[in-house]
Amino acid sequence: MTHIDQYLKDNADRFEEQLCDFLRIPSISADPAHKPDMLQAAQWVESQLRHMDLTTEIIPTAGHPLVYAESPEVPGAPTVLVYGHYDVQPVEPLELWITPPFEPARRDGNLVARGATDDKGQVLTHILGAQSVLAADGRLPVRLKYLIEGEEEVGSASLETFLATNAARVACDCVVISDGCKFSREIPAINYGLRGIAYFEIRVQGPNRDLHSGSFGGSVTNPATTLARILAAIVDRRGKVLIPGFYDDVLPLSERERRQFAALPFDEAQYFADIGVTGATGEEGYTTLERRWARPTFDVCGIWGGYQGEGAKTVLPAKAGAKFSFRLVPNQSPAKIAAALKQWLPDVTPPGVTVELIEFHGAPGVIVPLDSPYVEAAARAVEHAFGRSPVYSREGGSIPIVTTFYETLKADVLLLGWGQDDDNTHSPNEKFSLVDFHRGIKASARLLQELGQIHKG
Amino acid sequence: MTHIDQYLKDNADRFEEQLCDFLRIPSISADPAHKPDMLQAAQWVESQLRHMDLTTEIIPTAGHPLVYAESPEVPGAPTVLVYGHYDVQPVEPLELWITPPFEPARRDGNLVARGATDDKGQVLTHILGAQSVLAADGRLPVRLKYLIEGEEEVGSASLETFLATNAARVACDCVVISDGCKFSREIPAINYGLRGIAYFEIRVQGPNRDLHSGSFGGSVTNPATTLARILAAIVDRRGKVLIPGFYDDVLPLSERERRQFAALPFDEAQYFADIGVTGATGEEGYTTLERRWARPTFDVCGIWGGYQGEGAKTVLPAKAGAKFSFRLVPNQSPAKIAAALKQWLPDVTPPGVTVELIEFHGAPGVIVPLDSPYVEAAARAVEHAFGRSPVYSREGGSIPIVTTFYETLKADVLLLGWGQDDDNTHSPNEKFSLVDFHRGIKASARLLQELGQIHKG
Repeated sequence: MTHIDQYLKDNADRFEEQLCDFLRIPSISADPAHKPDMLQAAQWVESQLRHMDLTTEIIPTAGHPLVYAESPEVPGAPTVLVYGHYDVQPVEPLELWITPPFEPARRDGNLVARGATDDKGQVLTHILGAQSVLAADGRLPVRLKYLIEGEEEVGSASLETFLATNAARVACDCVVISDGCKFSREIPAINYGLRGIAYFEIRVQGPNRDLHSGSFGGSVTNPATTLARILAAIVDRRGKVLIPGFYDDVLPLSERERRQFAALPFDEAQYFADIGVTGATGEEGYTTLERRWARPTFDVCGIWGGYQGEGAKTVLPAKAGAKFSFRLVPNQSPAKIAAALKQWLPDVTPPGVTVELIEFHGAPGVIVPLDSPYVEAAARAVEHAFGRSPVYSREGGSIPIVTTFYETLKADVLLLGWGQDDDNTHSPNEKFSLVDFHRGIKASARLLQELGQIHKG
Repeated sequence: MTHIDQYLKDNADRFEEQLCDFLRIPSISADPAHKPDMLQAAQWVESQLRHMDLTTEIIPTAGHPLVYAESPEVPGAPTVLVYGHYDVQPVEPLELWITPPFEPARRDGNLVARGATDDKGQVLTHILGAQSVLAADGRLPVRLKYLIEGEEEVGSASLETFLATNAARVACDCVVISDGCKFSREIPAINYGLRGIAYFEIRVQGPNRDLHSGSFGGSVTNPATTLARILAAIVDRRGKVLIPGFYDDVLPLSERERRQFAALPFDEAQYFADIGVTGATGEEGYTTLERRWARPTFDVCGIWGGYQGEGAKTVLPAKAGAKFSFRLVPNQSPAKIAAALKQWLPDVTPPGVTVELIEFHGAPGVIVPLDSPYVEAAARAVEHAFGRSPVYSREGGSIPIVTTFYETLKADVLLLGWGQDDDNTHSPNEKFSLVDFHRGIKASARLLQELGQIHKG
């Protein structure tokens, strides 16, 4: 057994306890009531890095603080930036959690808690991996930089601002990010593409107060009905987006990619069985994987208006609203999509209501080149830890900040997800496989060693 | 001066004192603490009717007692049922009352007290009217029945139960109800139509949990988007309902009705200004009054699903739901509408979701033919008392107990409101114009005389 394997084995229990400590901090970035928890989570991350003798800093921002850390330069070796986030999604609906979201519980080989896989468990593998290399080899083989933010779930605005003026400080040769999934339970993956996002809230205001639906109904434009009509007009029944110009800039899938996707051992029946549906609608002419990874989409994320309680209240609501997102593919611009949407809205806004559109964070999609030495190093490290070579896949979700890294730092981005599709990210009972947690630490350690072999002139 | 006019004049002060006595009883049906007051109010009503030599009964119920009274049959003349209620709304916020709610005060020609117009003052006109006819003519020209309940403000449950098994006992040719408003301060109205209602909740269930809209979006049928599509498919952009067969049984507006509606001094600009909108959508080819009173409609009353909190949560919700109502017009059957909706739903339900429809209460619309001799008698009585002929109006809302009378008794229902829009029913400083109180008594007396002229074979 190598020094590092011995170290990983000896410290496995401690690693899990550290993750539990991290998960107990309810760092919900979307909720202002959790502001103190956000600072506590940042301090927790900073203390882990400080104990590795890195130069650390908690950087205040207009929102939640950034944690930044760096090790000394290693002559001739690359500089590697680890990115992750310490913030988590809200926990509602709370009643569906089997155990409380911030009391980590071990069940069926998993650790169950909000943030277990997204992203506390995954980002921690890259802290513990470096710790392990340091302990086993006595030195880091590359210069390491850590940039761990607290606003990933709410749009990364402060990190974007920071990067706009600190590109030189965080300059690197590659960025390592683990904030996603393997291809399947046993097949690791290197993700080379992410979808982008354009997220909006729409508010429809009608009369100045809730009205009696009997006395007024039929003579007044109903805001809730109008909202439904607007949302329904955005897509056809197969999910094809109808906003004029929406597909103009879409980068089409290459034949090679389509063949690669088709060759992946994707069990579609199992996929649908796992989420409990017996069928699906989706854009015509595309496979399920293509729809998830490489085609733009529209989804209503939340909708509200009028009476939601028990029984029958005959009210014509004064207002209604919804949150929705477009997932974008590489080459689509969130700003252009937002502009197209704004231009189109008046066409579907009837007299008697006003419609307000609120723009949330947007990010374009990303494609990472597959032929760089960093990708090859990552493939070797993943194979070492997970026992088989990774497949190359894309991801339907968005990590908006990846685009910024890719564009601002001109660095290759290694998207190495250790999670699983059914980890319930953003849902009740989020979990992370403990086996994968330890494999992730091992892969991270090996990755640093592999990257140390790359000679920088 | 006729006998009856003389009688009305001579007894005007006593009438007002009797109303004050009635108003001093704090008969708040919603508040269990007022249970003894409820019985006292019922006894007060019963004693008024007993002094007119009617057979009277206080009928206990699971809730508050009913007061029932009837006079002997008048051969060849119709039977007339007077309905009203002795219960009143709660009085909070008490601090906004200028004088205490159960100490009737005369101000600006009004009597101010809780229940003044809703419904003590109005129901009393039909007791004092009959007293006056009896005193002046020595006999009642029709058989009179009174059914005065104590639960109108809390849902009329006991009366519904009573009517289900006592239809024969309260059988009549027409029902007289004064529990509403004139068309305007100086224009009396006969309300000859109510809309019905069919109320539903719809629940759309998709995947077995909330999903990440990035990882899954595009490959899964979104329940919230589906809900929007279903609701949007129910109506066109002008509010015309698209469910097949929905309009099959609709009783069209007659040319006479449309001319009458058009002739009403309805200030549409003021109507829209009051509710704070600058325009409206509505069924093509119909005026605002026609849309409110005489056309069936669809309204979303409540809608929910997914994330409704602050910020942007990128979730594909597991489920979504809505409550909605159809307002029906006479001759439409709530059961047929429900059946048509159920039959249509599968056509708009895509693969990947299940749709559940929950049926709430339904009630058909009510319409009294304008050429009914009872309506004509009422028109003459109202003109006699108010100095101008009434307008014929309809109401967009539903009054469930009126529907029950209409359906159970197969009798024409005369809705003769003596109140005004600004009488503060259900609000502090409820009032009833004393002039209208006396006009109401006069109209009620004349109505009995007019109805006495109708020959029943």
